[in-house]
Amino acid sequence: MSKEITKVQFEGFKYLEGGVCAPQGFKANGLYCGIKKTGGDGNDSPFGTKKNDLCLIVSDKMCNTAAVFTQNKVKGAPVTVSQKNLKATSGKAQAFILNSMNANTCNADGEQKAFRMCELTAERLGIKPEEVLVAQTGVIGQVFPIEPVEKKIDELVLGLAYDKNEEAAKAIMTTDTVKKEVAVEFTVGGKVCRMGAMGKGSGMIHPNMATTLNLVTTDCSITSEMVEKALRENVKITYNCLSVDGDQSTNDTLAVMANGMAENPQIDSEGEDYETFKQALYIVMMNITKMLAKDGEGATKLLECRVKGAQDQDTAITVAKSVICSPLFKCAMFGADANWGRILCAIGYAEADFDINKVNVSLSSKAGQIDVCENGAGIEFSEETAKKVLSEDEIFIDVELAEGDAEAKAWGCDLTYDYVKINGDYRS
Amino acid sequence: MSKEITKVQFEGFKYLEGGVCAPQGFKANGLYCGIKKTGGDGNDSPFGTKKNDLCLIVSDKMCNTAAVFTQNKVKGAPVTVSQKNLKATSGKAQAFILNSMNANTCNADGEQKAFRMCELTAERLGIKPEEVLVAQTGVIGQVFPIEPVEKKIDELVLGLAYDKNEEAAKAIMTTDTVKKEVAVEFTVGGKVCRMGAMGKGSGMIHPNMATTLNLVTTDCSITSEMVEKALRENVKITYNCLSVDGDQSTNDTLAVMANGMAENPQIDSEGEDYETFKQALYIVMMNITKMLAKDGEGATKLLECRVKGAQDQDTAITVAKSVICSPLFKCAMFGADANWGRILCAIGYAEADFDINKVNVSLSSKAGQIDVCENGAGIEFSEETAKKVLSEDEIFIDVELAEGDAEAKAWGCDLTYDYVKINGDYRS
Repeated sequence: MSKEITKVQFEGFKYLEGGVCAPQGFKANGLYCGIKKTGGDGNDSPFGTKKNDLCLIVSDKMCNTAAVFTQNKVKGAPVTVSQKNLKATSGKAQAFILNSMNANTCNADGEQKAFRMCELTAERLGIKPEEVLVAQTGVIGQVFPIEPVEKKIDELVLGLAYDKNEEAAKAIMTTDTVKKEVAVEFTVGGKVCRMGAMGKGSGMIHPNMATTLNLVTTDCSITSEMVEKALRENVKITYNCLSVDGDQSTNDTLAVMANGMAENPQIDSEGEDYETFKQALYIVMMNITKMLAKDGEGATKLLECRVKGAQDQDTAITVAKSVICSPLFKCAMFGADANWGRILCAIGYAEADFDINKVNVSLSSKAGQIDVCENGAGIEFSEETAKKVLSEDEIFIDVELAEGDAEAKAWGCDLTYDYVKINGDYRS
Repeated sequence: MSKEITKVQFEGFKYLEGGVCAPQGFKANGLYCGIKKTGGDGNDSPFGTKKNDLCLIVSDKMCNTAAVFTQNKVKGAPVTVSQKNLKATSGKAQAFILNSMNANTCNADGEQKAFRMCELTAERLGIKPEEVLVAQTGVIGQVFPIEPVEKKIDELVLGLAYDKNEEAAKAIMTTDTVKKEVAVEFTVGGKVCRMGAMGKGSGMIHPNMATTLNLVTTDCSITSEMVEKALRENVKITYNCLSVDGDQSTNDTLAVMANGMAENPQIDSEGEDYETFKQALYIVMMNITKMLAKDGEGATKLLECRVKGAQDQDTAITVAKSVICSPLFKCAMFGADANWGRILCAIGYAEADFDINKVNVSLSSKAGQIDVCENGAGIEFSEETAKKVLSEDEIFIDVELAEGDAEAKAWGCDLTYDYVKINGDYRS
């Protein structure tokens, strides 16, 4: 199966190669510095090679920046530090340093060390530590070794380049099997703007902040307030509609940095330009969301549940998520088993108000479509066709509530042997 | 590993052998009648043998009865029928007929056939159809074949006996690997009373009604209202604190039938006798809950999370359930991996109000105990001891919130390869 997602086209937006370096003025670098629980720098990462574990993204100009973080009461130290920094600068940042292999969470000296990451970066770049964001992912509750970062920070900064987005994207991978990048081009006020992103999953992913680490860069000129607004509107219908396993990380971070170098008239209020920016952000975030789902731990299939005909968007979201989160349904999809009763069951326990007796359900993929449920009751379908449809690696579950006009999507993946294997002994 | 649970002793209550036939005046029978999707009666059940798929429990006298059912919007036809029957009789029932292999849910003729089950039973017993409860479990959305039941109902009734509780308990098993029965003896008003139960799991089990089918019988004399009250108080802290996989069945049913044959002064209000009855019901329900958890689909370990020091019981329940429901934690337990960060993470996303920085966590089993987290931060522990502790098949997770006096328990199981295997192709 392929971990590549099928990209949906949107008029007026063009996909580009690359990721966070696609917009003007963003340099990146990533390298292996040897962060792991022992603090050494040997060649014994779970990936078997010296996979990059540290990266840095720097903008040539100060960025108007907004970010959303985990809602878990247990917040990783880097989350607290980044929140403080963004508050201190009123939404400005010029650099973002990230590492994998250690989440620096639930450690007594966590905040101090997370801030030290910002200091080390700022010193080399000649900016303030508060202008640096930090994100960390990996095992929780093991002392974070700052020494490997201290040792490699010069090399990391010296190696920054306008085309090393891949080195950065690889550095934040943990159990991800593929790097996750996307970039689009669009026009605002007659100026060509670009937006790029990188993300990492792939377990501990659930609505209310999807994954651990994500960065969106853009050269579009826009105020921090409007970035924040577009981010909040989009996170609800993208990352927060993603579930891999129902767990919610302590370190979830998604930052959007806008350096304004496209020189469009600055977006500072709602209107056509803002809508274009918001749509670009939607495309980028939605694509990363799908990549995260498809590369969910152990996943063999991307599941997209599309709920239509809801009374309101919240109902649509609730129902779509309920289907995507059902372990029984996820197992059935792994087995390419059209056990639609489990879909209806999951719709039934969604905490939302609708009449189950009006619900229609169908399953589709590029191999075809089967209608499995009409007015809340099962209907005949060909098991042979069902098997063919469900053997593809991108499955759509369409749910019609027949009560209104609102709709929503949610994304997830199947539950497989490998999910259990990956998580049965992650620490060792 | 053993699927048998370790029974906790309670003063004044004695465990007995047996199940629903332990109290006076309850007969049972179970047999294979050939219910499955094709409606035939061949020897091709997924169990490879003619496993019992139909059972009947009958009391010599009319029972004061209360029941709780699934909260899923999609309700199986037998749930609707049993609810109507109990309403029609104002909480009386004398018989309970149950089957596995087909849930009779999401079928156009479901209610009609579920009621037909009651009629068939009532005709033979000379009682009203409304005095019969019905419960069904198995695959959803396939037409229920009533013919095998019609063919075997005489044999089922004629074979009723005071000692065939096992035949009945086996008949409701689906993916359960062991039958689930428990019985206790206690004294009310100087009279010896008995209470027995049977239950079945083992997937699609989640808070808000734990499992599909459960019956508690007792010869204690008590009004329907007080049975109902005791049932509701106990279900909150037993079945509703159980999670196998987060899915919630459409057919969950738990009925308590009290025939009064112990001849104690009838319990009709709160007081010492009611407390004794309620405690007996707690013991029975808690033990079945633990059996359901330990025999969860694919499970190799029973997990019991005990939360203490909460501001109130709801907080304690919410936190305990959150730990038990975390797929990442469940996988870690499968791997005997003391990844306590995942426990803290799950505590952190519990929707309840407490200070995460005061939380202490320890893990224990009969092999010993390890303290893993103090005041919300990790502490040193021996990985060797941890492995020993977590290699047992009953693991306790103790969480101290240090904010009050309330406490609660929740039960679950590890997430394993076999869960995925069992559910990847359940229908075929």
